[in-house]
Order: sequence, then structure tokens, then C-alpha cells
Amino acid sequence: MAHLLSTSCSLKIPSCRKTSFQSLDQSPNAFPTSFTVKTSKSLVRRVVLPGESSQRSHTVYATTTPIKQEASAQKRSSLHQSSNDPSSKQKRVMVIGGDGYCGWATALHLSNKGYEVAIVDNLIRRLFDNQLGLDSLTPITSIHNRIRCWKSLTGKTIELYIGDICDFEFLSETFKSFEPDAVVHFGEQRSAPYSMIDRSRAVFTQHNNVIGTLNVLFAIKEYREQCHLVKLGTMGEYGTPNIDIEEGYLTITHNGRTDTLPYPKQASSFYHLSKVHDSNNIAFTCKAWGIRATDLNQGVVYGVTTEETAMHEELCNRLDYDGVFGTALNRFCVQAAVGHPLTVYGKGGQTRGYLDIRDTVQCVEIAIANPAQPGEFRVFNQFTEQFSVNELAALVTKAGEKLGLDVKTISVPNPRVEAEEHYYNAKHTKLIELGLKPHLLSDSLLDSLLNFAILYKDRVDSKQIMPSVSWRKIGAKTKTVTA
Amino acid sequence: MAHLLSTSCSLKIPSCRKTSFQSLDQSPNAFPTSFTVKTSKSLVRRVVLPGESSQRSHTVYATTTPIKQEASAQKRSSLHQSSNDPSSKQKRVMVIGGDGYCGWATALHLSNKGYEVAIVDNLIRRLFDNQLGLDSLTPITSIHNRIRCWKSLTGKTIELYIGDICDFEFLSETFKSFEPDAVVHFGEQRSAPYSMIDRSRAVFTQHNNVIGTLNVLFAIKEYREQCHLVKLGTMGEYGTPNIDIEEGYLTITHNGRTDTLPYPKQASSFYHLSKVHDSNNIAFTCKAWGIRATDLNQGVVYGVTTEETAMHEELCNRLDYDGVFGTALNRFCVQAAVGHPLTVYGKGGQTRGYLDIRDTVQCVEIAIANPAQPGEFRVFNQFTEQFSVNELAALVTKAGEKLGLDVKTISVPNPRVEAEEHYYNAKHTKLIELGLKPHLLSDSLLDSLLNFAILYKDRVDSKQIMPSVSWRKIGAKTKTVTA
Repeated sequence: MAHLLSTSCSLKIPSCRKTSFQSLDQSPNAFPTSFTVKTSKSLVRRVVLPGESSQRSHTVYATTTPIKQEASAQKRSSLHQSSNDPSSKQKRVMVIGGDGYCGWATALHLSNKGYEVAIVDNLIRRLFDNQLGLDSLTPITSIHNRIRCWKSLTGKTIELYIGDICDFEFLSETFKSFEPDAVVHFGEQRSAPYSMIDRSRAVFTQHNNVIGTLNVLFAIKEYREQCHLVKLGTMGEYGTPNIDIEEGYLTITHNGRTDTLPYPKQASSFYHLSKVHDSNNIAFTCKAWGIRATDLNQGVVYGVTTEETAMHEELCNRLDYDGVFGTALNRFCVQAAVGHPLTVYGKGGQTRGYLDIRDTVQCVEIAIANPAQPGEFRVFNQFTEQFSVNELAALVTKAGEKLGLDVKTISVPNPRVEAEEHYYNAKHTKLIELGLKPHLLSDSLLDSLLNFAILYKDRVDSKQIMPSVSWRKIGAKTKTVTA
Repeated sequence: MAHLLSTSCSLKIPSCRKTSFQSLDQSPNAFPTSFTVKTSKSLVRRVVLPGESSQRSHTVYATTTPIKQEASAQKRSSLHQSSNDPSSKQKRVMVIGGDGYCGWATALHLSNKGYEVAIVDNLIRRLFDNQLGLDSLTPITSIHNRIRCWKSLTGKTIELYIGDICDFEFLSETFKSFEPDAVVHFGEQRSAPYSMIDRSRAVFTQHNNVIGTLNVLFAIKEYREQCHLVKLGTMGEYGTPNIDIEEGYLTITHNGRTDTLPYPKQASSFYHLSKVHDSNNIAFTCKAWGIRATDLNQGVVYGVTTEETAMHEELCNRLDYDGVFGTALNRFCVQAAVGHPLTVYGKGGQTRGYLDIRDTVQCVEIAIANPAQPGEFRVFNQFTEQFSVNELAALVTKAGEKLGLDVKTISVPNPRVEAEEHYYNAKHTKLIELGLKPHLLSDSLLDSLLNFAILYKDRVDSKQIMPSVSWRKIGAKTKTVTA
């Protein structure tokens, strides 16, 4: 293992692994001796966490109340007071979906950069895995452990609100309690294949994403009208038009007249469509209510470590390789590691924008630090490089060979309905202009991703690799998964 | 009353009113002596309808089973068989929302033209009136009475399925039972102000409209893949761009390359946005599943009678004049009739496309008779003339003066967020090319509308006339109405 990891320039797992959770637990100041979570019915339960003696009891109250670590209660109180100081504006950031792949990395990054961070999450991403029989390649611990580990390592508190933003009463309480200056909204069902499993998942995806975002908009209007919404969109909203893709808007001259209009959208799954719906809803509220919003049309994210998640194995981010949540490149690296042919869908000419997860967290930070104006609906295309699927397969093949892997590629019938050969040229200059320093896809990054995959290859369930969801065969009958 | 109505060339109320429901009821063959509706729990109730003796009992079965008039059971059975005959293709039309303003007129028109018609409706439009304390200017009877009256007048059966299309189990049963060749989908919350009352109405509107339409798409895919979807969109999806509005698509040349893309949308209420979401969802399913769909981007509809609704007072259509469901022109005529100043919102330069309800039913029939191809997402702009609000006010003032009314106009603060002076030029040639013969707004039509308003002016609740919903002041708190 040490040999494999030595080829990586960015992985910090060896040093992290020296400090196990067990040893942290033995530090007298590492964890509070108790904390409280209030239930919605104000029932108070004594909770004994796995691996802890029953003497270390935890009193639990509400889902809408952050886990309050009693040792830091006084500090939190003073932080809250400081938010009334104009100089501390934009300091309090609510990360909705902060337990997910991009959300967790972002929450840690913002906390590390001095923002006061709260995570709002209903943890349903973990439920999807349970229900579909999937798992992250990398072992991840509970959100509670993650946050406690972060606190013990850095002294920084991340508040936690567990609940569903489609429940407006819950969301209201989080706004009134945390008083965010910015909301980063990752809290959506984010898989195109998931949205195409069956009717109930399609409906869930659009309901969950659209209504959740509507609730966030109403919460901002009602409780924090100066709060900046940083919403995760997707480059998939644009589809693959035969003209250059601009950042959100397009100036059109038609029959001798000119206007700058929202860029035409051609989304290609119920998930991607939900993001288009969100964008349209948000744009309207910017105009009608003066909401300030930034729509980050993100490309496909790859990579697993950021500076913060690499600090300890308890902070490790998830890595999805399955046919539902796994995205190209991450999935290819896992396939290469376990000797599974790289699965190119159809002709492989599908070209998209890609970015390193270290740039995801950087972009969000840039958006927060440079907020949209009141009433402004600002759109950034958030990716750093374009690749076709065939180009990615070739890069992974080459990197695999350097590590002694024999990498094959096969074409599988495309489960999606999409152009497999097309023009693609998407602009992505606005974040660069605001200071983004891209981590471009490099041999060393591919090495490290492959090494991650090799490190955890015994955890790979090869049954999950092939695409199992068909855009054309989706039906009304609810699908379930057999053991 | 007779004097007033004599100025109208199209109103047939006097002759209709000669034949009261009472006299129809006395005809031995006019109504079945019993019919059945099954409840969802298969409970069978004996129902005595108002105005009928208890000897005329009605056995009632299911919400998903059409009201089966026993006298016509044999005829219906033979009709079902004939739908297997290729020559009868496109004959069976399901009108979702067939109890509403446009839906009822359309259902009757199609039935009159020889189509086999089923109405699917949850009757929630009537509930909105009850909850908000509103009422149609014209008295309307129950959907059950309407359908029985139509049967007695014409011998034609309209099947009735009462239920919610957001309930997929219900919708599936309607598809399996009725086997539509075309679905006309009016079944949405259709008021922009309603969607802007409060958060819960905004969320209801988007959930109801988007999920209902998704369910219709899945039902077509699952049960009737050749069925043509005729979906009511709105001209409001386009907003008021500074360039000509095309019909659904725009050919764009940008940086030396050209593509034909969906026309950019700029909707300005949660209702209008829901229609944009629908359009995007439908377009995707046409591409991915080969659904054949026509999106009718309808302008503002005015008028109350069609050839069919004028046949009997029990067939009378609703006419909304209130600040929530009333639309310009219809509302102005009612205001003029009761001596209320015409309420122009803001500067009154807001220009939109308008059409007579007689053209609504004609357009839908044209769309059904000329179906979209499999996989085609066809968009028609469904209106006949453009007017600004100020132009409408001037027309109503002039027509009112002819009838001896003293019509005043006032400007009220605009409750909406919209441009009040803007360029507007929207194309609407495709339906004309397919044979639409427009009923243009004329003095005689305005006279008849005004006469309708005068006829029923004692039913006007003047408290409902002024706008009560503000685009800017909408809040999270649920609004209720006091008596």
C-alpha cells in the first residue's frame, strides 16, 4: 500500500491513517463529553454511539437544532454576536447537502478558510445507497463523526441541521437559528441515471429538487433577504447545441433587433431538467424579489481528496463508481484498478466539461467572496477542461499502464439518449477572471485516483459497474433491487 | 333583459332559457333512471340529486370509472369496439381539466364534432373558488349535470373520470379504461395570481402542474405510446423579449455557427414557470421516448359562449372576473357592467396575444386532427390578435358607451413585476396554416360580453374585483380569506 501511495503527490492517507479515530477518542479534549440533539417532539434520548462506552452518554434533542457541543457553547454564542458586525458580512455559510460528495468537501474547505459553516442535510444520499445496494468505494463515516473529527483536528465547529428542505418548517428553523449570509445549495438528487430508474424516482427527483429550491428562495425572502444564494446547476442544462455555449445568457440578433436572453436549454434527463427548472425559478425571484443568486453550472467532477478531506481518514470523501452515481473518469479509474474494461457508452464522442473537486471547493469560495448583486441572477460555467469520453479512456489507459495495469476499453450500448458525436465549445472564463487557479487533469492526479481505486479495490462490487438504467426503457412500475 | 340581449348576434341564452332543466327532467328519455359511480373503497351509495324525487335513485361507483348511464351501456360497448378499427384512429380524446373554462368548452366542441370524449378532472378549480370566496359570474352547474344535459340534448356521451392526475394509479386506470388516441391536457392550476398568493400556493402550483404532466407522459409511454399529447402552454412562457417571438424555436447564428434551439423563456410567475418546466419535460420525452406532442402556447382567452355551451343554460361556461382568476377583457367587461372603473395595472402598455374561446376550441380540434409525428415536440402560438391593456380598456369604453354605460378607467399600482412598456411581436401562423379561421375581437363580441356581464351583474361581488395578490409581497405564511 505504501508503495502504491508513494506515487501520489497529493494523497495524504498514510499520515492520516497514523491517527486513528480510536486514538483521537482517547484525547481528553478531542470530543465533548456530551452534546444534545432535540427531537421534533422534544423527546430526550440517551444515545450511546458505536465504539464508545456507555459512560460517554449523548443527550439528543431536535433535528432542527444543531448538535451543540457544550464545550463550545460560549464560543458559538460570541460568534453569533459577531455576525451583527458589518465587517463580518458573508461569514456565515449554510451548506445544504453538506454530507454529499461536493458538499462535504466544500463545507470543510469553507470552514478551513474561516467561514462559519452549517451543514443542512437529510442524509438521503446514504439512503439511496442502502436502497440500491451501492456503496462508496472509499469508506466514509457518519456525518456526526465527520464533524466531530474536524472539530478535534482544527478546533473549528461545523453546525449540523439534519432535516429535509422540502419541509419548510424545518428549513425556516435553520434560517432563523443560523442566520446565513450565504447559502450554498447542493441539496438535490444529483444523478441523471437515478432520475431515469422509474417513474417514482423521476417524480421524486423533480419534486425534491424543484420544491426544495423554491423553499430556499422563500426562506431567503422571508428571513435573510440579503443572503446570497450559490446554487449548484449543471453544464448538462445546456445540452449539446451546435453553437458555442455561453455563461447563462446569449445575445441574439433576430429580424434586426437584439436582446440578451437566457441561453436556450436542452437538458437530457429528468435530473438535468430539474436543474433547468431551478434556474428558471431562481431567475424569476431575482427579478421579482431582488434575490441575489449565482448559478454554478458545474461540469463533471473528478477526484476524491481536497486539502481538508485528506487530513484524516474520518474526513475521507465518498467516491462513487457504480452505474447510477459514478461519473466518468472516477468510474474509469475504478474499472482500471479492478481489471474491468473501461465502459464507453456508444461511440464515446460525448464531450463535456470536467473539473477537479479541489476546483469545485475553490469555485464556491470565489462565488461567496464575490457575491451577486441584489436582483442579479449570475451564471458561471464551472469547469476547467473539456474531454470526450474516448479521450478520458485513453488517459486512464495510459496512466494505468504506468502503474502496471492492463487496461482494456469496451463500447457498451449507450443507456442514455444523447448525441455521441457533436460540436462542443463551452465558455468558462468568469470564474477564472475572479481568481480561479485550475488544477488541470494531470498524470499525477490520474495516478493518485488510480491508487485510491487500487487501495480500496477489495471494496468494489463489480455487479455495480455496468449501466443498469435505460433512458428508453424507464417505465411506470417502481423498480426494486434484489440482493 | 331581452332588450339587452337583442344587441348580441351570438348569444343564445333566451332560447336556451326557454328549455329549463326542469322541463328536460320531465322527458322520459332525457335521463337514465339510474347510473352508477364506484367509490375507491367499492362502497355503493344511493344518491339523490338536488331537485329530484327520492324515487329517482342513482347508484354510485368508482371515481376512476366513468359514470355509466345504463341506458347507453350497449352503445358505449360498441363504440369501444370501433376504436380498434384503424379508420377510427384519433377518435378517442381525453380532456384533462375538462370541467374548467377552456376544458369544458373544448370537451363539448370535440364531442359535437364526433370525437369520443372523456373528461378527467378532480374539480379542484371549484374548490379554489370555495376556499377564496370567489364565484363565476355565470351560474354553472355540476359536471354531472352538465354531462347529463349534453347527453339529453345531443344523444352524445361524455365519459367522466373524477380524480387527480398527480395520483398515478388513478391516471393509469383512466388510460387503461378509456384508451385515448389524444390527450388534451388543461388539467393544471392556471392562474398566475393564485401561484403568487403565498408559498404554499406557489409550491402547489409547481408540484401539481409539473408532476401531473410527468404522470401524463409516463401514462402515454406505458399504456398508449401512439397517443398524441396536446398540452396547453401559455404565451407567458416567452415573457416580453426585445426580439420577435417565434413559435417554440429560434434559429440562432452565433460565432459563425448556426443551430435551431428552443426559444429562450422568461416566465414571470410561478404559474408561468410551471408551464416552462412542463415544456422542457415534454420536449425531453419526445426526444427520448418518441412521444408525439403539441404545446399550445395560448394567449389570454376571452368570451364565454361557444356554439355548444350556448345550447342550454346547464351547459353555460364559467366567467371569472375576480383579481385571481379573472383575465383582462373578461374582467373589464364585468367592471364596465357594474360601474366599476376599469383597472389598468400600472402604465397599461403591457401587450399580449388574445383569442376568443371559440378559437381555443377550434385550435385544439385542429391540433388533434393534425397530430404531431412520433418524437416531434411541436409548438404553436395559439392567439389571434395582440392588444395592450390600454387598447383593451379603450375598446371596452367605446362598446360600453354604445350600451349607455359610463365607463371610467383608473390606473392601479401594478401587483405584478412586469415591463409596462415594451416591444411585442409574436408569430402565430402555424395554426392559421392548418386552417384556423379566427374570430377577431369585434364590436358585436364586446357587446355580447358586456351583455353577459349586465345580465349577471347582480351576482358580482365587487370586493373581488381589485387585485389582491402582490408579486413582491408574497410571503411564506399561508394566507386565508376572511368572510
